[in-house]
Amino acid sequence: MTNAGRLKNKTAIVGMDIGGTKMMAAVFDQKFHKIGVCRKKSRSKNGGETEMRVIKVIREAIENAGNPPIAGIGVGSPGPLDPATGVIIDTPNLGWKNFPLAHLLRETFKTPVVVDNDVNVGTYGEWRCTALRSKKHVLGVFPGTGIGGGIIIDGKILHGFSGAAGEVGHITIMPDGPFCGCGKRGCLEALASRVAIAKEVAALAAREDAPYILEHCGTDVNAIRSGVLARAIEAGETMVEEVVRKAAYYIGIGVGNLINVLSPEVVVLGGGLVEAMETLVLEEVEKAVAEHAMPFLRKNVRIAAAQLGDDAVVMGAAKLISERIDEGGAKK
Amino acid sequence: MTNAGRLKNKTAIVGMDIGGTKMMAAVFDQKFHKIGVCRKKSRSKNGGETEMRVIKVIREAIENAGNPPIAGIGVGSPGPLDPATGVIIDTPNLGWKNFPLAHLLRETFKTPVVVDNDVNVGTYGEWRCTALRSKKHVLGVFPGTGIGGGIIIDGKILHGFSGAAGEVGHITIMPDGPFCGCGKRGCLEALASRVAIAKEVAALAAREDAPYILEHCGTDVNAIRSGVLARAIEAGETMVEEVVRKAAYYIGIGVGNLINVLSPEVVVLGGGLVEAMETLVLEEVEKAVAEHAMPFLRKNVRIAAAQLGDDAVVMGAAKLISERIDEGGAKK
Repeated sequence: MTNAGRLKNKTAIVGMDIGGTKMMAAVFDQKFHKIGVCRKKSRSKNGGETEMRVIKVIREAIENAGNPPIAGIGVGSPGPLDPATGVIIDTPNLGWKNFPLAHLLRETFKTPVVVDNDVNVGTYGEWRCTALRSKKHVLGVFPGTGIGGGIIIDGKILHGFSGAAGEVGHITIMPDGPFCGCGKRGCLEALASRVAIAKEVAALAAREDAPYILEHCGTDVNAIRSGVLARAIEAGETMVEEVVRKAAYYIGIGVGNLINVLSPEVVVLGGGLVEAMETLVLEEVEKAVAEHAMPFLRKNVRIAAAQLGDDAVVMGAAKLISERIDEGGAKK
Repeated sequence: MTNAGRLKNKTAIVGMDIGGTKMMAAVFDQKFHKIGVCRKKSRSKNGGETEMRVIKVIREAIENAGNPPIAGIGVGSPGPLDPATGVIIDTPNLGWKNFPLAHLLRETFKTPVVVDNDVNVGTYGEWRCTALRSKKHVLGVFPGTGIGGGIIIDGKILHGFSGAAGEVGHITIMPDGPFCGCGKRGCLEALASRVAIAKEVAALAAREDAPYILEHCGTDVNAIRSGVLARAIEAGETMVEEVVRKAAYYIGIGVGNLINVLSPEVVVLGGGLVEAMETLVLEEVEKAVAEHAMPFLRKNVRIAAAQLGDDAVVMGAAKLISERIDEGGAKK
């Protein structure tokens, strides 16, 4: 890192993004420049506990930054989790159940730690680290393999009673609709996630109605990712385009519902699907919002694509802990 | 009023409920006992402006209370309105457009005034004036002619960017579903309001599948009210019961969606439909919540019937202004 060691006696903060497949830690100096990074897969081939890998990734990122003194660590992790205590309630694919992640990191690094849901933290990053920072009511929706949501109300992340508010992927928008990964039917996620799209497109490929997809992915739902969908549409696969547009329209129905309930000033859309097909997705979302949100609530609402890409969670996590420290609310 | 004049030199507060068809003002002493009330229809037969009737109703309630000095007036009014300024944006059936209601009352009564949406205020009353007052995250859903919602987050009414958050009746839960009064399709209100139920029941009556309804209301949608629906069900009209249960289930889908998004601790259900058929409605709502809200978010959520009936708005409005005065935030 060119900036390594630049801080010397000044403190730095760490933002950590724990994903289901990969994790990343980034170290930021007091001007919020990134001075050290480390990325790893979430699970090692030879087993090994996830928490040991989290510690290792943070340690290496700090080393890469030239070992500045660390003032705090912010973490975005899949939920459900308790943001008040930093306990991960249950994330089967990381092997955690009632796991006291914040406590472990606090003990290990002797520094304040805050842990929050990764989508909340990503939304927080898109809000605090872009031109949107002056807004007070922000909704983040991130369609990918699932559909995550983060809600900022009056400048604060909405956690609700359970700590896990913002499950926007599981609002029902079609009773008796297709099955969702959560076990129920007609969730937004069952209609508009990458998997929901891939399933329809795989059927098109199986019927030879999507030759580009058939050639590049076959008919395997798991092989049909956002990038190849974008390329198929560019190649003129109109039925694929219709499937993606329909899914984006459903996302827009979900966003419209949330505008009616929450009345945000800005809606940030991110995730793989948006990154691969921003114009198309935003067009359909805006159309659905015009058709499903109440005029008084939707007027003046800005619908924007996320800006920070893969850095949203590490940046949001670092902002979260640094602001918590400034407020004097961080536990050591 | 037996308590009239009891306050003498002590101050009292006024809660005002402005409805589309009737209005009520109630005066409360410092122990929050109701010491004066006045009710009138919202529109006089010989015309006359609504705002003059509002002033008259408040004046008469104060007179009925023995003319105590008034420390503040809280008002619940149909929206959309701006709770920050007390300006009613647009309520065609009261004849108000950009009408500065709070300003008018402040000038007339020379006292602090707060104006908020009637459903917000009713939810606030059900929260602050019952055993629920220790809760911090409360959702109120009031199915009637329409379906209104009030949202308390972390002890505060959610207003959002527009000031009009909480339009839970207009979340879409069935794309391409039946038409709603708002002009779009498949809103919760289009599936589960009193009108949505009455329309189905009128069709049953027209087909002679609901003889009790046919005898008592004919086939007029507007004549089929919650009370007669309850009596028809008691009389054994099973198809009417199925219609009401289906509508209540849709309300439960809406509540489930809101639990997923907001994570409340308590859901209060009120309004005419719930008052007339509490057990039946709550059964279906609880069933739908079990089927549509995420397990982690729905567990420990209490679903309760409203307690205050027609007094919810005047009590909530009075609480709101008295708390605002205590906080020092009320404008005179």
